[in-house]
Amino acid sequence: MGLTIVGSVAFDDVKTPFGLREKVLGGAASYASISASFFHKDVYLVGVVGGDFPQEHIDFFKSRHIDLKGLEIIEDGKTFYWKGTYEYNLNQAHTLDTQLNVFQNFQPKLPDSYAEAEFVFLANIDPDLQLDVLRQVKNPLFTACDTMNLWINHKKDKVLEVIKRTDMVLINDAEARQLCETYSLTLAAKQLLDLGTLAVIIKKGEHGALLCTKEMTFSLPGFPLDEVKDPTGAGDTFAGGLMGYIASKGKVTPGILKNAIVYASVMASFNVEDFSLDRMKRLKPVEIEWRYEAFKNLTHFD
Amino acid sequence: MGLTIVGSVAFDDVKTPFGLREKVLGGAASYASISASFFHKDVYLVGVVGGDFPQEHIDFFKSRHIDLKGLEIIEDGKTFYWKGTYEYNLNQAHTLDTQLNVFQNFQPKLPDSYAEAEFVFLANIDPDLQLDVLRQVKNPLFTACDTMNLWINHKKDKVLEVIKRTDMVLINDAEARQLCETYSLTLAAKQLLDLGTLAVIIKKGEHGALLCTKEMTFSLPGFPLDEVKDPTGAGDTFAGGLMGYIASKGKVTPGILKNAIVYASVMASFNVEDFSLDRMKRLKPVEIEWRYEAFKNLTHFD
Repeated sequence: MGLTIVGSVAFDDVKTPFGLREKVLGGAASYASISASFFHKDVYLVGVVGGDFPQEHIDFFKSRHIDLKGLEIIEDGKTFYWKGTYEYNLNQAHTLDTQLNVFQNFQPKLPDSYAEAEFVFLANIDPDLQLDVLRQVKNPLFTACDTMNLWINHKKDKVLEVIKRTDMVLINDAEARQLCETYSLTLAAKQLLDLGTLAVIIKKGEHGALLCTKEMTFSLPGFPLDEVKDPTGAGDTFAGGLMGYIASKGKVTPGILKNAIVYASVMASFNVEDFSLDRMKRLKPVEIEWRYEAFKNLTHFD
Repeated sequence: MGLTIVGSVAFDDVKTPFGLREKVLGGAASYASISASFFHKDVYLVGVVGGDFPQEHIDFFKSRHIDLKGLEIIEDGKTFYWKGTYEYNLNQAHTLDTQLNVFQNFQPKLPDSYAEAEFVFLANIDPDLQLDVLRQVKNPLFTACDTMNLWINHKKDKVLEVIKRTDMVLINDAEARQLCETYSLTLAAKQLLDLGTLAVIIKKGEHGALLCTKEMTFSLPGFPLDEVKDPTGAGDTFAGGLMGYIASKGKVTPGILKNAIVYASVMASFNVEDFSLDRMKRLKPVEIEWRYEAFKNLTHFD
């Protein structure tokens, strides 16, 4: 069963208290697809890059057996570029520069095989484009979306329409509060569930994640880490692990959804241990299983 | 087995987005002892109040079978007074006024029966007074302390000495970062464990609590609540529930410590549902057990 992931592929300049990296691989779809690839073989990437996108990154995606038919390369264009910095409070990114470049005119076009995918993740892009993708997919089993404050500010109605039309929404705590105009995360989740989406996952950075459905609530703390080098892409890595795990199971039961959140958190906790996707490059499947067990020991009581 | 609790008993004026209450019962020792009383029969309160402290509050403590031999009443003095306000981010209290009054010259004097208590909780007071109490107790089985930023700013060495001499420290996340000069909570906990204390509990407000010992780490998310009316005393209610549960078991195994943290979180989650100790006044034991089960459903996965 296929998992189609639509979103940005980018170059990032990132500065944190632990170092500086320039023109490294970034973008929501990069993080999400690489993370998903640890759980599922059929990951389809939809995005756009410029002629400046190096073969090295293409090879990395291919080494993770990610299908790149949907990655448009505009030879005379430049890849989306983001520059950001973090202070010691790593929950808060400060954007210093954004150059949309080829992403400015991004119009996701799904190859036929992608349109027939059973699972779809709409990473954070313009909600009009997310709706456009939803019109292209044939009959998906389970769809999920992410968003960001920019779209809530400028296209709130469209954001709500996307949420209404997808089975699961991933959103961070500040965005949930902004979108639903309430401080209470549980009330925010209820508002979104009332729109018709089946599951709301509120991402709380180092504080973990909260899942709300009409039938249950599940809360997982963040994995305690001695050092976080670069939080960039943690939410996308989370989403990719989540959807990759679900796609590998081929169905979405409450138990599978809980386990998926734990695996999602495992992946995010690894990713922040190094810059860009560097930790993913050397991550071994056994490490994922070990940290999953560590999460169990961390949270279980009698 | 006795549980001696030393700390402030106060009048609070509290304003939150959900209302305003004036001259209501407050103080760390009030919250901690009432919370502990739901688990343990022999709770001994050490504190000081003025002649203005109403019989109504005395009667409330007595109705919870709390021993008040250690509650000094200075007839011609005034009770400690705190005035604070919270914005929508209820994690952050803003102090508007503090009048120490009789608390200014507080010198905890433990009645003999209190000095022989097996369990001791030193709520947040001047670390010199905490050390003084530690000199008075005979041979306790398990001691715990709390502190606050004021003492870390002005008497850091003494705070560290208290931590060194108690078996468990409770501290909030911002204070742990300040005291240990690191953003990482796990590294902060390791520093404190290296001083010799056996357990470090970092309280993270709505984000739950983290327990670190040399052998294990346990993390519990906050209980998701639709509404928090007044977070005042949540940390003290947590500490009281924790120590009350431990005292009721008469020993401190890793499993008991985990369960104690869950019960502590249950108590704190109830207390913030209303102002002052109002929720405690109508709390039923069965509600505690039900929320404990709800915590299990909230956090467990296979």
